[in-house]
Amino acid sequence: MPKKLIAEGLGTMILVLFGCGAAVLMGAEIGMTGIALAFGLAIVAAAYGLGAFSGAHLNPAVSLGMVMAGRMTVGEFVGYAVAQCVGALIGALVLLLIASGKADYSVAVNGLGQNGFGAGYLGEYGLGSALLFEGVMTFLFVTVILGATGPEAAPGFAGLAIGLTLAAIHLVGINVTGVSVNPARSFGPAVLVGGKALADLWVFVAAPLAGGALAGIVHAIGFTRADA
Amino acid sequence: MPKKLIAEGLGTMILVLFGCGAAVLMGAEIGMTGIALAFGLAIVAAAYGLGAFSGAHLNPAVSLGMVMAGRMTVGEFVGYAVAQCVGALIGALVLLLIASGKADYSVAVNGLGQNGFGAGYLGEYGLGSALLFEGVMTFLFVTVILGATGPEAAPGFAGLAIGLTLAAIHLVGINVTGVSVNPARSFGPAVLVGGKALADLWVFVAAPLAGGALAGIVHAIGFTRADA
Amino acid sequence: MPKKLIAEGLGTMILVLFGCGAAVLMGAEIGMTGIALAFGLAIVAAAYGLGAFSGAHLNPAVSLGMVMAGRMTVGEFVGYAVAQCVGALIGALVLLLIASGKADYSVAVNGLGQNGFGAGYLGEYGLGSALLFEGVMTFLFVTVILGATGPEAAPGFAGLAIGLTLAAIHLVGINVTGVSVNPARSFGPAVLVGGKALADLWVFVAAPLAGGALAGIVHAIGFTRADA
Amino acid sequence: MPKKLIAEGLGTMILVLFGCGAAVLMGAEIGMTGIALAFGLAIVAAAYGLGAFSGAHLNPAVSLGMVMAGRMTVGEFVGYAVAQCVGALIGALVLLLIASGKADYSVAVNGLGQNGFGAGYLGEYGLGSALLFEGVMTFLFVTVILGATGPEAAPGFAGLAIGLTLAAIHLVGINVTGVSVNPARSFGPAVLVGGKALADLWVFVAAPLAGGALAGIVHAIGFTRADA
Repeated sequence: MPKKLIAEGLGTMILVLFGCGAAVLMGAEIGMTGIALAFGLAIVAAAYGLGAFSGAHLNPAVSLGMVMAGRMTVGEFVGYAVAQCVGALIGALVLLLIASGKADYSVAVNGLGQNGFGAGYLGEYGLGSALLFEGVMTFLFVTVILGATGPEAAPGFAGLAIGLTLAAIHLVGINVTGVSVNPARSFGPAVLVGGKALADLWVFVAAPLAGGALAGIVHAIGFTRADA
Repeated sequence: MPKKLIAEGLGTMILVLFGCGAAVLMGAEIGMTGIALAFGLAIVAAAYGLGAFSGAHLNPAVSLGMVMAGRMTVGEFVGYAVAQCVGALIGALVLLLIASGKADYSVAVNGLGQNGFGAGYLGEYGLGSALLFEGVMTFLFVTVILGATGPEAAPGFAGLAIGLTLAAIHLVGINVTGVSVNPARSFGPAVLVGGKALADLWVFVAAPLAGGALAGIVHAIGFTRADA
Repeated sequence: MPKKLIAEGLGTMILVLFGCGAAVLMGAEIGMTGIALAFGLAIVAAAYGLGAFSGAHLNPAVSLGMVMAGRMTVGEFVGYAVAQCVGALIGALVLLLIASGKADYSVAVNGLGQNGFGAGYLGEYGLGSALLFEGVMTFLFVTVILGATGPEAAPGFAGLAIGLTLAAIHLVGINVTGVSVNPARSFGPAVLVGGKALADLWVFVAAPLAGGALAGIVHAIGFTRADA
Repeated sequence: MPKKLIAEGLGTMILVLFGCGAAVLMGAEIGMTGIALAFGLAIVAAAYGLGAFSGAHLNPAVSLGMVMAGRMTVGEFVGYAVAQCVGALIGALVLLLIASGKADYSVAVNGLGQNGFGAGYLGEYGLGSALLFEGVMTFLFVTVILGATGPEAAPGFAGLAIGLTLAAIHLVGINVTGVSVNPARSFGPAVLVGGKALADLWVFVAAPLAGGALAGIVHAIGFTRADA
């Protein structure tokens, strides 16, 4: 298997295991600030540890933005997206195994850090808020990523900048959707939790992909042309 | 539209949506430490994602300091300030739309992260404290920015340094004024909230602009001359 | 004594004194988020302050991974591991002396930030969870370290990336084992606390060494070959 | 006045105004984790904003370590120390003015973030713990600073590394002494608060200076010689 796909898989596993792990195993103690930092610092870990091999997209919405901005082919996108989803699933599985070592843990009750919205999910925001939040935030997230990794960017800083951006997005929206902006991150836990998590999954595939694709198009048109 | 104005608008939208969004949507869960981090990391996001196109001032007080330090013309300042205010307004609007998806949200009660002071506003500090805090903090903030982006500075670090400085200023003063140090950041929410927020707005235009202008003058006199 | 061993000893002393010190002296005030940051930022301190002299492994599992990846000899490993354990012990001793200056401190009751698992230890996770958590997390931690310090990595960023990764791992697992991923960090407090801490110590030697060794092997096979 | 002394004064003012300001104005809301971050990020602000002009010591114990390591003359040390103490006093004064704008603020009751120990001060640790903590922590802090700013260090990272190190030290010891490791930081508030703060001041002059001087000597002997 090419090492870039191993790197994407391992990196997305880190994202899910660290971020969702903090929520499930430590949420009561560290609160949403701690969970936000865990998701953001997971990106920092994967970016500096594995980014040299694959670019550390760790997210199909990011890879789609790269396609739209002309930095990746559709064929490469498919390989990346599959590796990301497999890595996210393995991360969620390892988390389930660790969590099961606590007597009162139940996946049905405590979940695996899955995304969601509406009645019974955190702040109980409606579908419209969920779609708007995920779409706008992924658009901004991928806009930041394309700028921070482009030819104009200061070399080396992208991993820190992108990770801290993801932490900030979590500081805004855990109450709204748990924050996905990443179909693979939502896929892993949803497959193992099932039920409402799986029924809501389409939101966290559709809105992030739309936001990421739009960011790629805007970047290509607005920020890549030589003029102005 | 020139891409530097698009970048300023998008970046200031990120600042308001992330910072005020954290306060409005997550304040009860993440506390003032989390809100401070959201404002600071929003700067990191915009600086690395968009800074290559516009310098990522995101703040008329910063742009005015740049004018006073001789790094920008008055004409450029006007364009930047307008783009920043438009971006802040769009950020506040998107936040209002997302927040409205929660059944018990009311802009009149919960606000949009607007700045203020006096009776009924957080720590209930008086006008004198508000003016002093905003003036001194913007002076120090713009002094840091001018130094961190000057020819003597280590390349690449400015975005992190400036974002973390803004986080620190929030850790000092959310109780005092909610922390503006930025007329555009105050303008966006105030326009949509109206009432006291709009009545107090002059403080968050006057004090930051005075502090930023003074920082530009001091920098030009004290830190740019070749001697000493 | 060669300066690289002094640097490893001092650095591991910093890790234990800062990380375990935050837990023992400030745990009630800063919570697990604060403790996680203290461990992570201790790595940042040692990496930039002492890394130029020794590489700042501060951890026998990291040094073993370096051996397996072909970057260090077994003889160097032994010297590093001894220096790390001595440094950790000194760090725990200094912490004990400082803590003893508080009237109601008792090492038997308050401990020294030792690792553990099972009945009576934080989240009361079982042995299986402890072994799995420590093994997988050390594997991922050393994978990140090998990537972040390799020839492909952006120069200078490794210390920040590795420290923030350790902070993230603590945000996931303090409830599970207190988080070791480092036999030396567990050794220092366990020797002074004795009892259950000493009885559990084998877990925090075996699992991290296994995870670190595996990361070194995988890195050598998967990420160092020129092909793919 | 030479611009390096202006820079030291402004930088130390930032340290006291941000760090002590967070404690006095926001302590109840942000807790000790937030206060620790404010002190650390104040260093980041001053280092990147003013470091190019003076090196941003901001601390007589750091400047003394520089003297002992042979990087500064005694004459320069005196100028730096005076500028640092003046800056710290101005920072404490501005904080007092802002705090006085809140109806129920009283410097006698709420203080100005002064250091201390013993009965009635935070964790009520004894004098021995205070001396040991301040001495050891300043030794480690200045050791990190000398390494991070030396010829072997990665360029540009020192400000982040040193600021995050100071944050970590605060995460360990606010309960013990409020954390000084810096005679100027203690001097500013103590002069304005008087009483016990002034009576305890000698501890926060003597222990940090001893720790900083020792770090300079150890660095010169252990880490600067060409051999080993």
